[in-house]
Amino acid sequence: MKMIIRIFFMILSLVSSISSASVQDFCIADPSGPQSPSGYSCKNPDQVTADDFAFSGLAKSGNTSNMIKAAVATGFAPAFAGVNGLGVSVARLDLAEGGVVPIHIHSGASEVLIVIEGTIRAGIISSANKVYLKTLQKGEVIVFPQGLLHFALNGGTGPAMAFAAFGSSNPGVQLVPNALFASDLPAELVEATNFLSHEEVKRLKGVLGGTNEPSLSLY
Amino acid sequence: MKMIIRIFFMILSLVSSISSASVQDFCIADPSGPQSPSGYSCKNPDQVTADDFAFSGLAKSGNTSNMIKAAVATGFAPAFAGVNGLGVSVARLDLAEGGVVPIHIHSGASEVLIVIEGTIRAGIISSANKVYLKTLQKGEVIVFPQGLLHFALNGGTGPAMAFAAFGSSNPGVQLVPNALFASDLPAELVEATNFLSHEEVKRLKGVLGGTNEPSLSLY
Amino acid sequence: MKMIIRIFFMILSLVSSISSASVQDFCIADPSGPQSPSGYSCKNPDQVTADDFAFSGLAKSGNTSNMIKAAVATGFAPAFAGVNGLGVSVARLDLAEGGVVPIHIHSGASEVLIVIEGTIRAGIISSANKVYLKTLQKGEVIVFPQGLLHFALNGGTGPAMAFAAFGSSNPGVQLVPNALFASDLPAELVEATNFLSHEEVKRLKGVLGGTNEPSLSLY
Amino acid sequence: MKMIIRIFFMILSLVSSISSASVQDFCIADPSGPQSPSGYSCKNPDQVTADDFAFSGLAKSGNTSNMIKAAVATGFAPAFAGVNGLGVSVARLDLAEGGVVPIHIHSGASEVLIVIEGTIRAGIISSANKVYLKTLQKGEVIVFPQGLLHFALNGGTGPAMAFAAFGSSNPGVQLVPNALFASDLPAELVEATNFLSHEEVKRLKGVLGGTNEPSLSLY
Amino acid sequence: MKMIIRIFFMILSLVSSISSASVQDFCIADPSGPQSPSGYSCKNPDQVTADDFAFSGLAKSGNTSNMIKAAVATGFAPAFAGVNGLGVSVARLDLAEGGVVPIHIHSGASEVLIVIEGTIRAGIISSANKVYLKTLQKGEVIVFPQGLLHFALNGGTGPAMAFAAFGSSNPGVQLVPNALFASDLPAELVEATNFLSHEEVKRLKGVLGGTNEPSLSLY
Amino acid sequence: MKMIIRIFFMILSLVSSISSASVQDFCIADPSGPQSPSGYSCKNPDQVTADDFAFSGLAKSGNTSNMIKAAVATGFAPAFAGVNGLGVSVARLDLAEGGVVPIHIHSGASEVLIVIEGTIRAGIISSANKVYLKTLQKGEVIVFPQGLLHFALNGGTGPAMAFAAFGSSNPGVQLVPNALFASDLPAELVEATNFLSHEEVKRLKGVLGGTNEPSLSLY
Repeated sequence: MKMIIRIFFMILSLVSSISSASVQDFCIADPSGPQSPSGYSCKNPDQVTADDFAFSGLAKSGNTSNMIKAAVATGFAPAFAGVNGLGVSVARLDLAEGGVVPIHIHSGASEVLIVIEGTIRAGIISSANKVYLKTLQKGEVIVFPQGLLHFALNGGTGPAMAFAAFGSSNPGVQLVPNALFASDLPAELVEATNFLSHEEVKRLKGVLGGTNEPSLSLY
Repeated sequence: MKMIIRIFFMILSLVSSISSASVQDFCIADPSGPQSPSGYSCKNPDQVTADDFAFSGLAKSGNTSNMIKAAVATGFAPAFAGVNGLGVSVARLDLAEGGVVPIHIHSGASEVLIVIEGTIRAGIISSANKVYLKTLQKGEVIVFPQGLLHFALNGGTGPAMAFAAFGSSNPGVQLVPNALFASDLPAELVEATNFLSHEEVKRLKGVLGGTNEPSLSLY
Repeated sequence: MKMIIRIFFMILSLVSSISSASVQDFCIADPSGPQSPSGYSCKNPDQVTADDFAFSGLAKSGNTSNMIKAAVATGFAPAFAGVNGLGVSVARLDLAEGGVVPIHIHSGASEVLIVIEGTIRAGIISSANKVYLKTLQKGEVIVFPQGLLHFALNGGTGPAMAFAAFGSSNPGVQLVPNALFASDLPAELVEATNFLSHEEVKRLKGVLGGTNEPSLSLY
Repeated sequence: MKMIIRIFFMILSLVSSISSASVQDFCIADPSGPQSPSGYSCKNPDQVTADDFAFSGLAKSGNTSNMIKAAVATGFAPAFAGVNGLGVSVARLDLAEGGVVPIHIHSGASEVLIVIEGTIRAGIISSANKVYLKTLQKGEVIVFPQGLLHFALNGGTGPAMAFAAFGSSNPGVQLVPNALFASDLPAELVEATNFLSHEEVKRLKGVLGGTNEPSLSLY
Repeated sequence: MKMIIRIFFMILSLVSSISSASVQDFCIADPSGPQSPSGYSCKNPDQVTADDFAFSGLAKSGNTSNMIKAAVATGFAPAFAGVNGLGVSVARLDLAEGGVVPIHIHSGASEVLIVIEGTIRAGIISSANKVYLKTLQKGEVIVFPQGLLHFALNGGTGPAMAFAAFGSSNPGVQLVPNALFASDLPAELVEATNFLSHEEVKRLKGVLGGTNEPSLSLY
Repeated sequence: MKMIIRIFFMILSLVSSISSASVQDFCIADPSGPQSPSGYSCKNPDQVTADDFAFSGLAKSGNTSNMIKAAVATGFAPAFAGVNGLGVSVARLDLAEGGVVPIHIHSGASEVLIVIEGTIRAGIISSANKVYLKTLQKGEVIVFPQGLLHFALNGGTGPAMAFAAFGSSNPGVQLVPNALFASDLPAELVEATNFLSHEEVKRLKGVLGGTNEPSLSLY
């Protein structure tokens, strides 16, 4: 009996000899604290539970009853608090038949797209303006290098679904047509910097809801 | 007509004024070249095709007719050549009913596990020996912080399937029981460094196929 | 005299006691060797000269007699061999009156633009489609965060000139209109992924020299 | 005299011309502030003293009167406040005769072990389950790659001592047997994920003080 | 009309399906918040304006009426708030005829120096004590590898001016003669650690304003 | 018996299901291959032995019979091949009574100095020219932030010894007096960039063996 007690005591001293290291295994996002370039402040580790590592925001199909017949849901920090600072995050893509994810970029990470259902055509455009286009079936994957323009569309009949994973908890997403036509960038600047006609820009600003902010006007 | 020709010429000069940048948008793994700490050598960009960005090695179910009723297939560099140097990679996990992925670590990256089918119970053990255990349904995700011990098991009836994504093209995977009982680490060292009994180590070396390398013998 | 000799000897032993460190202070790009995700192979340090750290390719004004009345010259690796692996690079921008640098992104680094001559209007579009627009005079600088869409135009009369610096030896540069209209991305895909009309895409493919690669055709 | 004064003035203008750069040379940990993924908040530089860069917590021998006849003391952030954010830290290992450091991993950094006294046997197990075992004498060093399972034991007679250095201010340390047998991971889960027998797990939970948390129970 | 409304509605659902990602495109420095090893706290994105990305502190010539006939102005974080966390920053160098920038280092980043006016001689000393010296004319650039000793001087007649760019928002700058002779490092320590004579150290402490802090005294 | 065989077979399928990942756990330096910015080429993993992880080059005392009564031995890549790419390395410092390590910098990493024997006085000079000076006894440690000027001297009677660890496999080391007086930097440039007198520079070039390379001459 004494023996057992002594062993217990020894174990405790082992554990305590290590416990002086207040190790930061993870940094669950606390959006109420200040942000730094490396991410959100960390939640007090003593209050972290298993739920902080999980995220159920991607479990349901997105509503694809929209112009692009597509829905994207993201599991980035701080919505998915557990990924903060860990260099990974995730998103879900639902594509109805004919659905399209417009040309876009992720400024902060490369992406792996994993097709779960249906057929998805994915394209990448390189800095040399070379196009890489691939049709993916269920279970196939493709990688989009960080910061390169890319797009995806439903390449088959029936709905398609995919999960995307990123090498950052904050990959960003910037849809080119939205940046151009849903922002308040004055039409004259959209035209001058994209070679587009005035009529086309006006039309798309109307469709996508962009305005012409006078204070940004060029001349 | 002249106008058109002149515009063409102007465009070409625009393009060429940029083309002096031999930009390295990606680095498709060329396993025949030397490796560096940052990854595999890059395939000649002129020979890169769309196929280099895609990977179909995870499309089929793994064979779960084994002791752990589980199969893991990986899409790391260089097998998935496109992810080389891009800070992402992917894997597939199939779990038959009762299937288990033993306790393991990924030394090089955090992981996001995305449940595609069935129910998966996933656990994380922190440096403070605190256990975080979560049951995930279809479409739910969990993050495993880099280098922390974790495991997964089929938590329901019927098969389960998940994809895993990692924040490195080379995350590594080290199964603890395999490291202990399927290696040629002498039994006496397994015992001394894990507090396990001689009988248990001998039994598991038998089951998992480990040997006792005399040259590694302790005394 | 003996004293001097002894001191010399001692110094040599000091120097040699450090010289066992074959230190890699820099890695001048050797484009003839293999590339890795971290950059080009290093030139043999014994053959490095002062010229390897310098670059004169940005000293002369670019030819702005083109459609955009602009010229961009880059000093990235390997053209500017000295920056390889050092996390910096540089470019030069010449803008004739009315000149425009189309909307573009640098996938690999943030940029600082330093106005040397004239007036430059620069714009940034964020992931939230918010526009930040600023007019800069000689000596003023602006930062473009990594991977965000941005553009610049001559905002005054007479020519303008600027140098740009990047936080990578390989920042990349991807001009959105060139990616869309100078590539061989089929018109139907440009339209579907940008909401552009068939007429506009056809017109701009004509202007910018893009083709419609049948093998990439959607349907 | 005037000359001297003028020189002083000039120097001051030199100094002040640089001093606009509020440079962050270091970031002494302030545990009272918020943590970020990159580490602890920085102490006000004006209040930093030489003591903030030093640490005396490793100067004394650890108490090795415990089950493993070993003691590990750590100099990680924030205990060793000066290393915060600097990518280094340090620890001390005391091994009585027969002492053992159980199999463990550091999730956040590689380690260099420097033998100061006695003989230490160190082992590494790779992802391929290959064992690398080395006996080190005084003054010899070994490197443990980040995230790989490793262990150390006193390989001679008499005590042994070593210092360990890490490439992170927060390397972490996770002892495998403690994670399995000193945590509240239910025995059934330890068994299922490690192939261990119920008897062995029960025995070791008893020895190491682990419990069976009902809320974590599998079925 | 209904059609338009419906399209608007669809667009909004597209936008909102993405907007759950509270993306951190940039991190404008807020010096009033805590600092982390990765930089300053981020200003609330809702309050960010175009001015936050720009900096006009380098637009005017520096005052070169000083001992070194040189002036350096820096655009580092937080003075240039926009670069915080973005891995770039900028500085301006004015050199009157005969002007000199003393030997110095940047601990945190490599530097590209861009000559805008006049002739600049720049030198680098490697770890192997090899000297690389180059004379640069207007428009020419040179790279100084991170942490290596370097200097610059006006190599022609008339004034010279250059901009410098860095691969960090916080590159640091440490002038060797100022560290030695303008600090309160006791003369005996300056002598012992640099082989300099007592007379020379005393003279230069006088010129550069250094003191001899008794509490730092060696013996 | 059949049962055992079947289990063996199952284990093998488990192992092989993981083995498709050609994991790069480490990258032992192969100096015969090309270098990249990330380090040396990797030795073929099949030929790696336990010896590749160890280094005995620091086991013996250095010869301190020299001008500075000090010896520094380094365990950087590729001499210590195992640390290549792992973000750590090590060095040994021997100081006879009165020994001094001149002011120097490590461009590539922060350093932790661990005093093993005797008394060492260590000093750091910050970018703000503030001096941090600390006397360390056996077992005490100090951190030198990356790229900051620092020095060490024997602060007691009798010899002193310390090990240093770095957060890079290639930290670099640049001794300021050697850079100035043991290089072939012309005396006139040493003087101009350090405010030193011609006599002092001439004297120290004589002592430390520097030359005046005519091709580098300023005027």
